[in-house]
Amino acid sequence: MGHTETLEKLHLIDREHRYLERIIAVLQWDEETYLPESGVEERSEQLALLEGIAHARLVSPETGRLLEELGSTPDNAGGDEKLPSLERDFLKTFRHNYDRSIKLPGDFVSAAARAEGLSQAAWAAARRDNDFLAFLPHLEKMIDFSRRRALYWGYDDNPYDGLLDIYEPGMGASGIDAVFTPLGAKLSALLKQLASRPRPDTSFLDQDFDAEKQACFSRDLMGRLGFDKKRGRLDISAHPFTTTLGDDDIRITTRYLPRQVQSGIFSTIHESGHAFYEMGFPRELGSSCLADGASMGIHESQSRLWENVIGRSRAFWKAMFPVLQSYFPEALSRPNAEDFYRAINLVEPSLIRIEADEVSYSLHIILRFELEKALFSGSLTPAELPAAWRKKMKEYLGVEPETDAQGVLQDIHWSMGSFGYFPSYALGNLYGLQFWEKLNADVPGVDEAIAAGNFSPIRSWLRDTIYVWGRRLAPEDLLKTVTGKSLSAEPFLSYIESKYNGIYGY
Amino acid sequence: MGHTETLEKLHLIDREHRYLERIIAVLQWDEETYLPESGVEERSEQLALLEGIAHARLVSPETGRLLEELGSTPDNAGGDEKLPSLERDFLKTFRHNYDRSIKLPGDFVSAAARAEGLSQAAWAAARRDNDFLAFLPHLEKMIDFSRRRALYWGYDDNPYDGLLDIYEPGMGASGIDAVFTPLGAKLSALLKQLASRPRPDTSFLDQDFDAEKQACFSRDLMGRLGFDKKRGRLDISAHPFTTTLGDDDIRITTRYLPRQVQSGIFSTIHESGHAFYEMGFPRELGSSCLADGASMGIHESQSRLWENVIGRSRAFWKAMFPVLQSYFPEALSRPNAEDFYRAINLVEPSLIRIEADEVSYSLHIILRFELEKALFSGSLTPAELPAAWRKKMKEYLGVEPETDAQGVLQDIHWSMGSFGYFPSYALGNLYGLQFWEKLNADVPGVDEAIAAGNFSPIRSWLRDTIYVWGRRLAPEDLLKTVTGKSLSAEPFLSYIESKYNGIYGY
Repeated sequence: MGHTETLEKLHLIDREHRYLERIIAVLQWDEETYLPESGVEERSEQLALLEGIAHARLVSPETGRLLEELGSTPDNAGGDEKLPSLERDFLKTFRHNYDRSIKLPGDFVSAAARAEGLSQAAWAAARRDNDFLAFLPHLEKMIDFSRRRALYWGYDDNPYDGLLDIYEPGMGASGIDAVFTPLGAKLSALLKQLASRPRPDTSFLDQDFDAEKQACFSRDLMGRLGFDKKRGRLDISAHPFTTTLGDDDIRITTRYLPRQVQSGIFSTIHESGHAFYEMGFPRELGSSCLADGASMGIHESQSRLWENVIGRSRAFWKAMFPVLQSYFPEALSRPNAEDFYRAINLVEPSLIRIEADEVSYSLHIILRFELEKALFSGSLTPAELPAAWRKKMKEYLGVEPETDAQGVLQDIHWSMGSFGYFPSYALGNLYGLQFWEKLNADVPGVDEAIAAGNFSPIRSWLRDTIYVWGRRLAPEDLLKTVTGKSLSAEPFLSYIESKYNGIYGY
Repeated sequence: MGHTETLEKLHLIDREHRYLERIIAVLQWDEETYLPESGVEERSEQLALLEGIAHARLVSPETGRLLEELGSTPDNAGGDEKLPSLERDFLKTFRHNYDRSIKLPGDFVSAAARAEGLSQAAWAAARRDNDFLAFLPHLEKMIDFSRRRALYWGYDDNPYDGLLDIYEPGMGASGIDAVFTPLGAKLSALLKQLASRPRPDTSFLDQDFDAEKQACFSRDLMGRLGFDKKRGRLDISAHPFTTTLGDDDIRITTRYLPRQVQSGIFSTIHESGHAFYEMGFPRELGSSCLADGASMGIHESQSRLWENVIGRSRAFWKAMFPVLQSYFPEALSRPNAEDFYRAINLVEPSLIRIEADEVSYSLHIILRFELEKALFSGSLTPAELPAAWRKKMKEYLGVEPETDAQGVLQDIHWSMGSFGYFPSYALGNLYGLQFWEKLNADVPGVDEAIAAGNFSPIRSWLRDTIYVWGRRLAPEDLLKTVTGKSLSAEPFLSYIESKYNGIYGY
């Protein structure tokens, strides 16, 4: 069998694996959006079965044989050096997924999927009822599954490193520490400095904003940003997310809080940023494992760039405030675009990560990163989490949640077993600003385009410069290729300082 | 291996097969309700893959071995006579499904699923654009797949018999003819008779009814009927349907036409009737193939009973008209419950089956039955369908559609390859009235309960008398067991005559 034929067979296995992953994504999307309450239990069984099937097909002996024929080994994942570079990149990524999968027993994969489905539902109920103890047994199970996953994969020091690797390959806890420690110190100092300055007026945000009208504005807004509604949609879930159900079926969710209109808006922009990345992979990567983000940190760089750097900018609201006003003519009759810009950029330590301002946001992440590290090193038990959470909130942000719903239960991630994901958000802030610097160097008049409601220069640059690579480059290589530099917090910190100096005049 | 262990293994195969069928149902439900336009193509590939996997697992050699060990053969499907009767019933139904499946090659199953996904989307677009020719190649493919399916299964005279058997086992085209011919003649005669009588006032229905308010009323109404919203939900689709996504996840859809408020209402009641059946199987049938309707005709008996016999009754609107009025106080300020009852029971030949009155409804079915028969005997080509449709509409109902959208393109069934399904609706009318006679003999004061908005006596009787059997009895056996009688059109015809004599005084 020649390489061409072998590659074709492997591409088929890869494509069918992705179809199965996307069917799983349909089931999960449905679970978060429309599944009737009593349907959760059987849905978990369905997910367990399908995860098991997908896993068994991927790690079948045939896959191993085909990889071998192409010269791909754990040490030379790209295979035969005479293969075209696109195929070698494909083999590297495919082999990475395959090596990870084959280390996990099929029963383990099914059991984890079953437990995750139940755990998510239990989390949603526990958060609603503010009942951490009801969620605790699920949380313990999720930690146990993650620990075993890390064991199967192998790790040097802490199993947490193995988990971090899923989301940000190669960084590890110590690599992240090295970035987060100085970042946290600088942000804390800035936070203290801003606390002594006069607070922008936010009183007009403290009104009732009809949820149905919020939804209409969100749909309008995503269209203006360039979201192709033939290839995706917007729904409502307890926790906003983006999911890819097909090459041409990328869905986002948001939530509408009647007395916090900005929450639905910025979630919509954030998830649109993820969706643009998923929608923007070149067709030549097709439905292959290369049509994927470089890492979760890079993915979050896209969402947080749109949400914050673009979406919370003065230029953005110059264009969009009149639009928002047209949906809420009465509630927003008093403020002008500048008032709105200042209000949504209020810096104030608060309880909820996804509502946090840009200055304090990364401190929410550092807190979670440290708790995860402690959980997996064994120095913290799951039962101790609520108290540890409150203590660290007090320490880093000076505020303490009155309820666990506003504390340790606020995020969905742990209920899905996604330990190690949180650092991606803060890394995304850093990557994002490095990309943004380069974008502004390459494209003249970005601010003016935004102020005119024209986002196509931004989208084109992102597509041609970042999306085009899919998962062909590792995050650090992508960063180097695009910006010529390594990971650095400087662009982020100088953006923050200049922006908030402008608002607060400190 | 003892029988107990063998049975356990077979039940596991059955249960997992049902999970896969329900995952397929999730994908299809999503395709009809929320799938973005451009996602159709990949969704068809996902369906093809999953149908292929489900099929291959069901017909694996292990399944055959287990059936053999239990003494189940095509001629003695129930297996070893010492097995408990519930297990023998399980084996009969499981074997029936297995025998059907194993005759179909896996490639065929995948190809059919792929084509069906594309065909449904093409149908929806063709109906929207009134473009039969755009749909024709898909229709031809669907007919070809059905013909080949019938060939694989084998049949005596016409492949159509093999298809009818999917929905109403054992009746065949000649059995249906024997029922439909006299039924059609009597309904036609009655239709002519009613045409000469004064027409009820329906002018108040010809107003704009806000779709969002219609949706609120439908949700309210289904709750009052007894729909358990923790175990199901209501959505919107181009063509109303019911689908089972889990034992505790049964979903219905409807559609809201601004100038035809009754359309959304009666679709909601119709689909609720299907859902009650699916929700009502006893837990002991569990997630097994016995938790299913006895046939599609029996299934339609449940939906049409709720829609028409209950939902279009004077007693029903005595209870529900004030509720409907509260949603549309202005539009419905003039009529009273009796006016509304008479208006929604207007008998008038019309173009759209699902909007048809009870007298002309079965004629729409007879038309479709005859066209399907002609298609599969070869005396009619798919391209000739629009003209044949118009001719028969003129002949049976005296009206002719101006567009194919209102004619041959109105129903989704053929686009899904569901040839042979339509007769179920008319059979359902007949079964339904036979059950209704018995229900009224068993339960005193049914009409009074309905008039008081109390449907629990009806639901309890249906559950304890019909749902309790699941698919354990063949349709004719269920009918005999419940009513002591064979299939007969008499109860239906005498119901029709007495009801419409009451309204029209002919």
